[in-house]
Amino acid sequence: MTNKYSIGVDLGGTNLRVAAYVGGDGFLETISLPTRLSAGRDQVVRDMCEAVTALMRRDYGDRKLAGVTVGSPGPLELPLGILRNPPNLPGWDGFNLKEAITSTLGREIILENDANLAALAEQQLGAGNSHRISDLCVITLGTGVGNGLILGGKIWDGTNGMAGEAGHMVVRDTEDLLCACGGSGCLEQYASATGVMRMAHERLGEAAPSSAHDLALLARSGNEQARGIFDTVGEALAIALTALVNTLNLPLYLLGGGVCEAWDLFSPEMFQQLRRRSYVYRLTRPLVLDPVRLEAQKTYILKAQLGSAAGLLGACALGLKYQLSSANPVEEKFGD
Amino acid sequence: MTNKYSIGVDLGGTNLRVAAYVGGDGFLETISLPTRLSAGRDQVVRDMCEAVTALMRRDYGDRKLAGVTVGSPGPLELPLGILRNPPNLPGWDGFNLKEAITSTLGREIILENDANLAALAEQQLGAGNSHRISDLCVITLGTGVGNGLILGGKIWDGTNGMAGEAGHMVVRDTEDLLCACGGSGCLEQYASATGVMRMAHERLGEAAPSSAHDLALLARSGNEQARGIFDTVGEALAIALTALVNTLNLPLYLLGGGVCEAWDLFSPEMFQQLRRRSYVYRLTRPLVLDPVRLEAQKTYILKAQLGSAAGLLGACALGLKYQLSSANPVEEKFGD
Repeated sequence: MTNKYSIGVDLGGTNLRVAAYVGGDGFLETISLPTRLSAGRDQVVRDMCEAVTALMRRDYGDRKLAGVTVGSPGPLELPLGILRNPPNLPGWDGFNLKEAITSTLGREIILENDANLAALAEQQLGAGNSHRISDLCVITLGTGVGNGLILGGKIWDGTNGMAGEAGHMVVRDTEDLLCACGGSGCLEQYASATGVMRMAHERLGEAAPSSAHDLALLARSGNEQARGIFDTVGEALAIALTALVNTLNLPLYLLGGGVCEAWDLFSPEMFQQLRRRSYVYRLTRPLVLDPVRLEAQKTYILKAQLGSAAGLLGACALGLKYQLSSANPVEEKFGD
Repeated sequence: MTNKYSIGVDLGGTNLRVAAYVGGDGFLETISLPTRLSAGRDQVVRDMCEAVTALMRRDYGDRKLAGVTVGSPGPLELPLGILRNPPNLPGWDGFNLKEAITSTLGREIILENDANLAALAEQQLGAGNSHRISDLCVITLGTGVGNGLILGGKIWDGTNGMAGEAGHMVVRDTEDLLCACGGSGCLEQYASATGVMRMAHERLGEAAPSSAHDLALLARSGNEQARGIFDTVGEALAIALTALVNTLNLPLYLLGGGVCEAWDLFSPEMFQQLRRRSYVYRLTRPLVLDPVRLEAQKTYILKAQLGSAAGLLGACALGLKYQLSSANPVEEKFGD
């Protein structure tokens, strides 16, 4: 282990988290702030850079700063670093976030999509690491549906940073239910916490509980309509996973985010539909699930391991790969 | 250019084609045979190996055989080389094709999915080559819907050779129309020649023409029902492409196969639906299409260039990358 540390930033629509990191699955130090969207994007960038600078001035012994990585909600055009109509950062469309941070901070940074960083963390520090898997796909079922793809141990950004938008795959051929993305029938409308609550209001009316957590409790108590909503979640995920499994044939797909609290409710329908719909899954699914050691050449669909810190951990992990003297990520294996 | 040549095989359900190759987009010599499925799989393997041996015995001056690559219909489990319920090779389920060819021929071969080889050919010798693109996805609209994915200039096989089955992505949430794969609402049912003809019989009854080619003529003559079928083709492709564009963000997607004769009929609906459904496509689509030089960081959806010889060309091209002394493909760039 060399004497270096990194700084990671997780820019969320509600909270801004900054951490110093030397490796492993914990942080050296973290700073959490509210994301003051109402004060304007320049102020948010200044708040972020002040927190980063505060950590840069700490005395971490002889450790030298390797790199600073910022995770941002997408869509993010890379390598330029320009936001394109980000739903969680209203008013930031067309904002060159990378340039704003670089000029305020006075040093180069890496900017990445937060879902991609969460996927990198799962690969390097979570399920991918425990099972020595370098290719995986993470789908995060939160307020929206996030997605990150790691191929050969590296983030797959696509040709301009827009890969990993599986939340807007079409899983229903309806034209009725318009998604904020402009499409209709998107996965996000059926498998996000927002989608789950919309279905609860549609199907339960005034009897709908006030959160996805309470809806899960209602379903577990035997309420058929509540159970049916989680069947819909499972079916939507199965249709999206059929596309991913059949085209990419990866060894590991991880589901994370708050909706995964209801894994017991949606996963039976998800696996049943997946077995029926995806013959690649049928041919490659593990017959026995040993959670300690995964069989090679099988398709595993598991819960993500890292929880809500995954994005920040991924930012830190990517920052640590930076060479001290260079703004370019080096090809060395993370962690050495 | 070194003094070597390769032998490629395209094993189809109807025809067996074998070619000797030294580079470029043509062949040194080809042998075509019927695939004698009724004589049994061992006989087909013997026929294939006899044709390969015949080409190995030819006098190609001082050229040495670099490698032999066989393209087979899938699903094909790799690296083992075992067929898994291949719809175009009935009765071959569980057959270790690689072992059978290797032992009959007495030398190592590369075995690959034919759609993946066609995609490799498009990348190395077709549209990918003319536009210097190393990441692309090819979807072939033939009797079925084939698919191959090239990432970083290499075939993406997935964890056990089953990647590239986009024909069985779900594009309709119907349960009614069962696909041979066991699923329902698969792309193949709406965008293959078989699917087009099924829709023609459903919608036109006895007035249905006898081929997809004649249906296209009928549509071009103004028949509304015939036009509507190609709109359905376009919509199904748009839903599948939305998933691929949103998750992979590749610079190039190519559509090939016989149904592409009707490009003028299905592509307007395909592009319109894609603009609406995929915001990644909206953000990255080229505003001006200059077929000679593609803009970087845009998403292009074009017709494939190579036609029905693509699979055989890809087999030859991959074979040429083989080292003379080794059964392992080397990492050198094709063509040198």
